[in-house]
Amino acid sequence: MHIVLNSPLDMHLHLREGDMLQAVAPMTTASFAGAVIMPNLVSPVDSPAKVRRYKEQIEAAGKSASFAAYMTLFFRNYSRAELAAVRKKIIGIKLYPAGITTGSDSGVTDFASIGGTLALMEEMQIPLLVHGEAGGFVLDREKEFLEVYLRLAESFPNLHIVMEHITTAEAVDLLDCYQNVSATVTLHHLLITLDDVIGGLMQPDLFCKPIAKRPEDRRRLRDAVFSGHQRIMFGSDSAPHPRHKKECCGCAAGIFSAPVALPMLAELFEDAGRLDLLQSFVSDIACNRYGLQPPAKQVILEKKPWQVPELYGKVKPFGAGQTLRWSIAA
Amino acid sequence: MHIVLNSPLDMHLHLREGDMLQAVAPMTTASFAGAVIMPNLVSPVDSPAKVRRYKEQIEAAGKSASFAAYMTLFFRNYSRAELAAVRKKIIGIKLYPAGITTGSDSGVTDFASIGGTLALMEEMQIPLLVHGEAGGFVLDREKEFLEVYLRLAESFPNLHIVMEHITTAEAVDLLDCYQNVSATVTLHHLLITLDDVIGGLMQPDLFCKPIAKRPEDRRRLRDAVFSGHQRIMFGSDSAPHPRHKKECCGCAAGIFSAPVALPMLAELFEDAGRLDLLQSFVSDIACNRYGLQPPAKQVILEKKPWQVPELYGKVKPFGAGQTLRWSIAA
Repeated sequence: MHIVLNSPLDMHLHLREGDMLQAVAPMTTASFAGAVIMPNLVSPVDSPAKVRRYKEQIEAAGKSASFAAYMTLFFRNYSRAELAAVRKKIIGIKLYPAGITTGSDSGVTDFASIGGTLALMEEMQIPLLVHGEAGGFVLDREKEFLEVYLRLAESFPNLHIVMEHITTAEAVDLLDCYQNVSATVTLHHLLITLDDVIGGLMQPDLFCKPIAKRPEDRRRLRDAVFSGHQRIMFGSDSAPHPRHKKECCGCAAGIFSAPVALPMLAELFEDAGRLDLLQSFVSDIACNRYGLQPPAKQVILEKKPWQVPELYGKVKPFGAGQTLRWSIAA
Repeated sequence: MHIVLNSPLDMHLHLREGDMLQAVAPMTTASFAGAVIMPNLVSPVDSPAKVRRYKEQIEAAGKSASFAAYMTLFFRNYSRAELAAVRKKIIGIKLYPAGITTGSDSGVTDFASIGGTLALMEEMQIPLLVHGEAGGFVLDREKEFLEVYLRLAESFPNLHIVMEHITTAEAVDLLDCYQNVSATVTLHHLLITLDDVIGGLMQPDLFCKPIAKRPEDRRRLRDAVFSGHQRIMFGSDSAPHPRHKKECCGCAAGIFSAPVALPMLAELFEDAGRLDLLQSFVSDIACNRYGLQPPAKQVILEKKPWQVPELYGKVKPFGAGQTLRWSIAA
């Protein structure tokens, strides 16, 4: 038995820079036709020149002609001229509240001050991708941010807003209220809850932001995805950290799922009896919402057991050591 | 400025065995007149002979004549003869639901089957100390267990039940309903919330069971303690693990607070403007509830800055590296 996926896309991906970029880019280009590249590098990708340079680095590291690196610009206030210059080179602009996650120090501190740029983006049809967390108690951060989404969605009804990596039932509810809002959901938030992170031994490898939430939240995410919700797309949020940043006292947030994403998604959708929805979740919905025409690329998943490696270079992948029922055909 | 504490007691303490016992016992005997010793060793302390042997080991390791090791027996079903034999050698019996924390594999699986032993304990006035967590979602475990406390408190109205290391507002509420129920609260649950554990970088050193909860829960615990609640006693739940069990993938639960407990409590009570309640919290309430007459021992806290060591042997203490305002006079 096998599944043929046409042009699978990862709509939320961290590729980092330098050696890490070299190590992880090929793992995404091997099984995806395209990916939305996050701009929160140590020096954020916040100019046309930085977009161009980072894209060249990714293409060189990815070594694949049939892969589209959909670049994002790091949100700050931009002029009309700046946006016009970068418009065709990006898929959207990624907004981070200041200090909320890795590489977000220069993010937005005052949402009242960004209306001009948002209006330009709306006019120029540049999507707004958002890390939607406020600064409160760790389990309430996404919920507290929902009022920002609500205001944005109502103030800019023609702006395509993407709630990135949603984790709560309330986010799914909000999504249902606004046609101009889409969402990505990760593999790991469909699989784990906070129980997996801190319920037994503490698991640094399952620590991520937003943190995995309650079983009810996971159920609501699954229900939405497995009912074929037409505005929820797959975005892995795969975010590699070298081992030592995961095991020292105070470990970094991020799960590296790129090389295991498609086989694990196949398993999850099969368990839900909804393998028929996998193609739309990993590609069609995103193409539709963003108006994409990704490179033609067929990825074949075989029902053949595969043991996930313990390490890829210095990075431990999600599901390390587990045997999966599905694998990517060579 | 200084504070004189008379016979401070730690009503919930893990001393472990072997080298670890040798290393940590003196840190408790240096500043406490007594401590309630938890029985969840690799081979649980579940017989009079094991109680006697473990007590001898503790006394040898603790090297202090003015320290009382208040021993507990690991709960299982005991006969009247067994209880009569051990009655005078223990302060109480500690009940663990099976599998709920370190060293609890042989704990209780069926609460319906333990009524006989509980009735004997009630008759013989042996207190029941309880690790009150059920097996559900990590944040709900204490709340889910409250119905067990309720049934125990009502079924055995003359049994002294101690809810160990409470962490939730709901536990404080329950405590208020039953005169035969007491509670211990740890230093760390008065200081931290889940935000400190997983809100920024993940902090293995703040990982413990029960896990720290929401800000509202901490507030309720503090309100109860700082209002001089007469049935809430200090119990550190100090639980040393060697570094490597805290930093490998999958790290163990437990915070080692014994050597810093009194100075940090002084700071906390001072900040709350309730230094007047410190003596009762760390000694008088426990003496009253348990009917104890601990060894006479004065511990003097000086208002003199003290930097907490990064490590005690192989164990990282709570507050490692922090400078505290109070220190224990030599």
